[in-house]
Amino acid sequence: MGAPKYVYFFGKGKAEGNAKMRDLLGGKGAGLAEMTNIGIPVPPGFTITTEVCRLYYRNNKQFPEGLEEQVEENLRKLEEAMGAKFGDPENPLLVSVRSGAPISMPGMMDTILNLGLNDETVQGLIRRTNNPRFAYDAYRRFVQMFGNVVLGVPHSKFEELIEAKKRERGVQLDIELDADDWRDLVAKFKKLIKEETGQDFPEDPKQQLWMAIRAVFESWNNERAIIYRKIHDIPDDLGTAVNVQAMVFGNMGETSGTGVAFTRNPATGEKKVYGEFLINAQGEDVVAGIRTPQPIDELAEIMPDVYKQLMEVCEKLERHYKDMQDIEFTVQEGKLYLLQTRTGKRTGLAAVKIAVDMVREGLIDEEEALLRVDPMALDQLLHPMIDPNAQVNVITKGLPASPGAAVGRVVFSAKDAEEWAARGEKVILVRPETSPEDIGGMHAAQGILTSRGGMTSHAAVVARGMGKPCVVGAGEILVDEGSKEFRVGDIVVKEGDYITIDGSTGNVILGEAPLVEPRISGDFEILMKWADKYRKLGVRTNADTPRDAKVARDFGAEGIGLCRTEHMFFEGDRIKAMREMIMARDPEGRRQALAKLLPYQREDFIKIFEVMDGLPVIIRTLDPPLHEFLPRREELIREIDQLKFEIAQSKSMEEMDEKLARLRELEELLETVERLHEFNPMLGFRGCRLGLVYPEVTEMQARAIFEAAAEVTKRGIKAIPEIMIPLVGNVKELRMQREIVDRVAEEVMRETGVEIEYMVGTMIEVPRAALTADEIAEVAQFFSFGTNDLTQMTLGMSRDDVAKFLDFYIDNGIYEKDPFQTLDQTGVGQLIEIAVKKGRSTNPKLEVGICGEHGGDPASIEFCHRVGMDYVSCSPYRVPIARLAAAQAAIKEKREKEGKE
Amino acid sequence: MGAPKYVYFFGKGKAEGNAKMRDLLGGKGAGLAEMTNIGIPVPPGFTITTEVCRLYYRNNKQFPEGLEEQVEENLRKLEEAMGAKFGDPENPLLVSVRSGAPISMPGMMDTILNLGLNDETVQGLIRRTNNPRFAYDAYRRFVQMFGNVVLGVPHSKFEELIEAKKRERGVQLDIELDADDWRDLVAKFKKLIKEETGQDFPEDPKQQLWMAIRAVFESWNNERAIIYRKIHDIPDDLGTAVNVQAMVFGNMGETSGTGVAFTRNPATGEKKVYGEFLINAQGEDVVAGIRTPQPIDELAEIMPDVYKQLMEVCEKLERHYKDMQDIEFTVQEGKLYLLQTRTGKRTGLAAVKIAVDMVREGLIDEEEALLRVDPMALDQLLHPMIDPNAQVNVITKGLPASPGAAVGRVVFSAKDAEEWAARGEKVILVRPETSPEDIGGMHAAQGILTSRGGMTSHAAVVARGMGKPCVVGAGEILVDEGSKEFRVGDIVVKEGDYITIDGSTGNVILGEAPLVEPRISGDFEILMKWADKYRKLGVRTNADTPRDAKVARDFGAEGIGLCRTEHMFFEGDRIKAMREMIMARDPEGRRQALAKLLPYQREDFIKIFEVMDGLPVIIRTLDPPLHEFLPRREELIREIDQLKFEIAQSKSMEEMDEKLARLRELEELLETVERLHEFNPMLGFRGCRLGLVYPEVTEMQARAIFEAAAEVTKRGIKAIPEIMIPLVGNVKELRMQREIVDRVAEEVMRETGVEIEYMVGTMIEVPRAALTADEIAEVAQFFSFGTNDLTQMTLGMSRDDVAKFLDFYIDNGIYEKDPFQTLDQTGVGQLIEIAVKKGRSTNPKLEVGICGEHGGDPASIEFCHRVGMDYVSCSPYRVPIARLAAAQAAIKEKREKEGKE
Repeated sequence: MGAPKYVYFFGKGKAEGNAKMRDLLGGKGAGLAEMTNIGIPVPPGFTITTEVCRLYYRNNKQFPEGLEEQVEENLRKLEEAMGAKFGDPENPLLVSVRSGAPISMPGMMDTILNLGLNDETVQGLIRRTNNPRFAYDAYRRFVQMFGNVVLGVPHSKFEELIEAKKRERGVQLDIELDADDWRDLVAKFKKLIKEETGQDFPEDPKQQLWMAIRAVFESWNNERAIIYRKIHDIPDDLGTAVNVQAMVFGNMGETSGTGVAFTRNPATGEKKVYGEFLINAQGEDVVAGIRTPQPIDELAEIMPDVYKQLMEVCEKLERHYKDMQDIEFTVQEGKLYLLQTRTGKRTGLAAVKIAVDMVREGLIDEEEALLRVDPMALDQLLHPMIDPNAQVNVITKGLPASPGAAVGRVVFSAKDAEEWAARGEKVILVRPETSPEDIGGMHAAQGILTSRGGMTSHAAVVARGMGKPCVVGAGEILVDEGSKEFRVGDIVVKEGDYITIDGSTGNVILGEAPLVEPRISGDFEILMKWADKYRKLGVRTNADTPRDAKVARDFGAEGIGLCRTEHMFFEGDRIKAMREMIMARDPEGRRQALAKLLPYQREDFIKIFEVMDGLPVIIRTLDPPLHEFLPRREELIREIDQLKFEIAQSKSMEEMDEKLARLRELEELLETVERLHEFNPMLGFRGCRLGLVYPEVTEMQARAIFEAAAEVTKRGIKAIPEIMIPLVGNVKELRMQREIVDRVAEEVMRETGVEIEYMVGTMIEVPRAALTADEIAEVAQFFSFGTNDLTQMTLGMSRDDVAKFLDFYIDNGIYEKDPFQTLDQTGVGQLIEIAVKKGRSTNPKLEVGICGEHGGDPASIEFCHRVGMDYVSCSPYRVPIARLAAAQAAIKEKREKEGKE
Repeated sequence: MGAPKYVYFFGKGKAEGNAKMRDLLGGKGAGLAEMTNIGIPVPPGFTITTEVCRLYYRNNKQFPEGLEEQVEENLRKLEEAMGAKFGDPENPLLVSVRSGAPISMPGMMDTILNLGLNDETVQGLIRRTNNPRFAYDAYRRFVQMFGNVVLGVPHSKFEELIEAKKRERGVQLDIELDADDWRDLVAKFKKLIKEETGQDFPEDPKQQLWMAIRAVFESWNNERAIIYRKIHDIPDDLGTAVNVQAMVFGNMGETSGTGVAFTRNPATGEKKVYGEFLINAQGEDVVAGIRTPQPIDELAEIMPDVYKQLMEVCEKLERHYKDMQDIEFTVQEGKLYLLQTRTGKRTGLAAVKIAVDMVREGLIDEEEALLRVDPMALDQLLHPMIDPNAQVNVITKGLPASPGAAVGRVVFSAKDAEEWAARGEKVILVRPETSPEDIGGMHAAQGILTSRGGMTSHAAVVARGMGKPCVVGAGEILVDEGSKEFRVGDIVVKEGDYITIDGSTGNVILGEAPLVEPRISGDFEILMKWADKYRKLGVRTNADTPRDAKVARDFGAEGIGLCRTEHMFFEGDRIKAMREMIMARDPEGRRQALAKLLPYQREDFIKIFEVMDGLPVIIRTLDPPLHEFLPRREELIREIDQLKFEIAQSKSMEEMDEKLARLRELEELLETVERLHEFNPMLGFRGCRLGLVYPEVTEMQARAIFEAAAEVTKRGIKAIPEIMIPLVGNVKELRMQREIVDRVAEEVMRETGVEIEYMVGTMIEVPRAALTADEIAEVAQFFSFGTNDLTQMTLGMSRDDVAKFLDFYIDNGIYEKDPFQTLDQTGVGQLIEIAVKKGRSTNPKLEVGICGEHGGDPASIEFCHRVGMDYVSCSPYRVPIARLAAAQAAIKEKREKEGKE
């Protein structure tokens, strides 16, 4: 019995492997085999299996019996295929030796190019290319790579020699060195290798090959590969394959060339090959930008046969992979070789068009089309953007917190934003960071820019909720609120200057950049309809204002999943009544202040019910700690100091008395601010704790809701309020709050004679609520997972404070993604599963949804689908994203069940 | 077939019921039956069963068929037993009618006394007592109670009539009204009833009785009873029984009397009946303190027969109930009646002596003795206390945060405390609240008093850890740090004045109260030995200093369950090096600062290992947020302002330069403080997050631990360090930290040539850690539940901020107890069970314990036993409490298994 098959050949239109043999041949090997099989011209070669790697390590780093013979045999086949011979000084075969694991580990393992060169074969290369400089450069690259990767000579030592040569020649760039220089360096490199390793550089190509194969297998266990596997949970015993492939060169004269192409336009999705090429050039030249490449169309004139063949290849690749491909090709002496094909990256616009087109073309079906579009890519279609053809002056970059671009004049306070906007100015609000007090100004502004804060800072979260462009954490910006200017290095931007921010990229641009409105083509609508056909999850929106509700409904939202009532307390006179409520010493005082707020709240709800006619509206009762409604301590102290100074300089008794009264008022406010100070406000006196200790607050809110519902019902509008009690951790909290809501509902229905269909439920955002969901579901008619807070408490991480360590955590793979953007399924997800299961066990009719930021994140939406939620709720501009993600989740699950995957 | 048995008689030494019939007869009825059966002289009577109550409600408030006959029959038996007749003007039988549910609902339902009085029978009572005033007073009380409870006339209306009578007679007190006055009021009360209800007061005793029985059944569903049952989870369909019992009077002349007694001394436990009595008096008279009662011994001379009988009764009760009893008795015309017996409350000292004595006497066994002593009562035996005989001036009261009494002179800052203590003064540190900066001062003080904060505030937690008396949240105290004084109403206490605080009661006393050292009798030791015999849980201690470790070991601790290292950074020069570390801009700077801290840490650990020779010591790496090591922002600003002022007034260039240098230093510090500011520090940059981002910190700490262990090992001391990584939420965090610890351990062992037995584990305090305990246990060798933080995160409540709502929560039964003192088993407990189960599933050898505050709470200790922990860890002064509680948990579980309960 001979040895098992260790080596798989590909070339001449036929390969021994195929795409399904990824485990044995690695990703690259399987891909090369597949391309070869479907008749794509690929430089031939062979793949040594991952099995060899495993045996190599198991057998004390010995190659298995029979490998040598199989490699020799395949090498002969390769020489035959290329019409060249390994070590032939006339027509030398050169190869690359590359790793290729079953799971991609980009850049972790080693690669050697141009193997087969030595002092003799380099002459053959010179003859064939008529380019001694190229040949010696290729040679020195090989010696350098081989010396480093195979023989372990530090990379820097080679670079030192190159630097010395450049000094000697008085030049700056590698490109300025000529053939002689490189030849000389080859000699120097070999000397270096001898000095460092005590051995000569191997001139024998066979010896080079075996040493390179061994080095690639060794690189499977280099330190960075081990760490990478640990971080990405890749098993250590998968092993890597080794691919030995013939080198081809696009710079062998005027009948050679190189290029890149997309099978369709990656920007627009247009069905037309799109790309560029260079005659007599290497792939690197295209990238380096030294020569200007020509559009792919022009190849039709220069090399009509190659062009025709390329178009056929593109067509064939698309038919085979059923997706738009991004290819690299080389023409060597009139012969086309495909070096690589991969699924092409594309804009959201292109993704939608290509997916819908391909269904029309019969290439894929609707399900596949839905799976093809990255839901997040839709984001680009939903906001204005900076004209991609415009020249702009990017002065700094922050985090892309809320997509879309905005142009406006700079202001530095929420108050200014409101005032300027009131007189018709478009403004960008620039702040170190924002707080709930700034909501009015954020509403008034076109966009928000902050120098501090992360993707989940106040500014970011609120701006996303408003669908307003926002850049946060632009750390280079120094904001000087006092002198109303900001600096970036030497650039000073003053109040009133125009800037443009791009919330999709984080760019901050000086001046007014031209914007283009998003073009939502008909294809987008078609795709959305397909999504609605396949998805099982409902999609609601988080909206606090009639405007947001309208936008979301237009985007297809099927209800409001979270209407926060606290934002309603900031506008105009409302904040005064709110503060009065907070300062009140007894329930009576609170009731009087609340009575002033009631009409405002009722009016807000009426407008929202009007927009959401016939759809459910979840309204959350007051949630944030009360100090958020008061001025900041420092501001108060500053104001008090200023006032004292003014009092001392009063010009009349009347003036003084007036100012003294104001002083007493401010001092009382300060006292309240200090009394309400909390060490960890996130875990403090907020949520239902407020409504329990001050039941009159819940009472007022319930009354406003039901009176509004009664009012619109009389006008023929269908209001379906669902009252949500926040921060419940114990069923008794919910029971006490529900008693108030039910009582008020009954009162209002009796007073108005209108029947109102409503529900009372709770947010599940405290871990204890999830753990005791069976008890809570006996009182709750619905659950809505508040995954922002649930993540904070389950992980013990304050969203506002993670900046100090979250980057470290993600860089080191402790969490793969920001858990405040993508749900931590392992931890938080467990609590959600427990809660859904326990909740439904005592209340099978329980309505379950999610209203945290995660409700708009595709991976999290898939999780929500799998645990059997009824709907997700997200910000208005994420509604289409959620619809698509929900459809994908349903399709994936269906396919799993059918065993297709 | 006749009706079922609805009425159970007791009297004449025999009862139809017994103690086991609690569900049918209620607690009171079953108890009266039991006493009667064992031959205790109890006023006879009968019990109408709870079944009747259920039937009453089920049957539309109709009494069941046959009840009337059974009541009549039992009434006849009662008349016979008492030799008196219902309604007999010569010798009237009077009865009480009382509720009595299977589960005690104190004060929730109604009671009627002296039933059977009317205008005729009152004359009989006068004749028998020779006391018209008493008789009419009894009569009017009956009319008043009956009018209110049965007929629904508001209590206040009767009181108004009494007030009017007192005004008319020009007197202040009820006691000053005479027989005529009361007779007159009886008439007025009857008139009032007629006016209010339209019906006459029923003169017929039978009618009175039936109306009263119905009223008691009705009271089962009065509003307060319903709410009480809801809060205490008592089923609504249990129903109440009704007890009808003959009235006896101790004020029928010189052969009558009344008294109270304990069967043993409740203060010391001495086996001798202890009590007092009054001749010719009612029970109320003993309580009212108008006459001075005589010691029980004197009864032997006055009524030798009664005394002898009483002693026999006490003996019999103790033999029967096998516990010390607290009894009420009445002697009516030379005949002794026991009105009540219940288990007597006792001091910790008495509890221990009685339990051990009763084992000696053969009354109970060791297990029973262990169950008899409330573990928390031991607390009294472990701290100095205020001489109970001393007259003291209590000026206010706070929360009893850490037991024991302390005397000292008042100081208002930690710095002053340290300075005064350094010169030999005993001080009490008085602060609005404390912070980690105050640790030094708290150590130096005899006790701590704060005006703010709850039982789990910083001051309370730290003081308990130190075993230092502490009173917190004394809200009446206004602390003025500026003028160094505090006020309570009009009283001003200045710096240097003496006060005494009692951390067991919360009392704050002006001046030096005399203290007594606790007497730990031999019985205490015996009980502890028994506890150790039965318990299965290990008991460790939370100790940061050698002194605490010593105290705990003397109290029986079997290791250190939590040694916090951060407290070690506050003393003397250490804080400087710590601040240098925090201010460092790079790892090198941090390493230099850490190198200065290393010798200190090593020295601390050496001393602790010495004390704990042979026992395990769990050392937690750095945990708190870094800003805790820096001065407070406001202090810095104040200091900077002051310095600027001084700079302006500098008298020389040298002085100015010096101050400017200091200014720059302070400004840099302020910048750091501001940079480190966090919104929710509890969930911020702390715990292992510090050790991950700054690995050199963990490295230094590991080195200090292992070098210390190596050092003591060379001297023949056995050190068993267990290194605990805090705030882990993800196994990868632990893995990275453990790699550092293992590496340093190996280095130190190699350097010193000493083998050290050690473990690496983690605190389970983040909910996610509990949920992913299976993953974490693959890397952790032990778990220690940090239930303080776990409770904060699971309930979403910041311990420092709950004061605003926790009282409301407990008053309204949302949580039955403060979840920071007694573990919330429903919520947090679930996470613990999940974690123990998952942890052991992947690591069966996993050592599991608890080190939160709950580790010293008996109810929580029982939970820890049941989930199978290996040990609990608590503050040194709680170690004996934990030993006893652990024994009780084991015994209870054993008994449940044996089906004894």
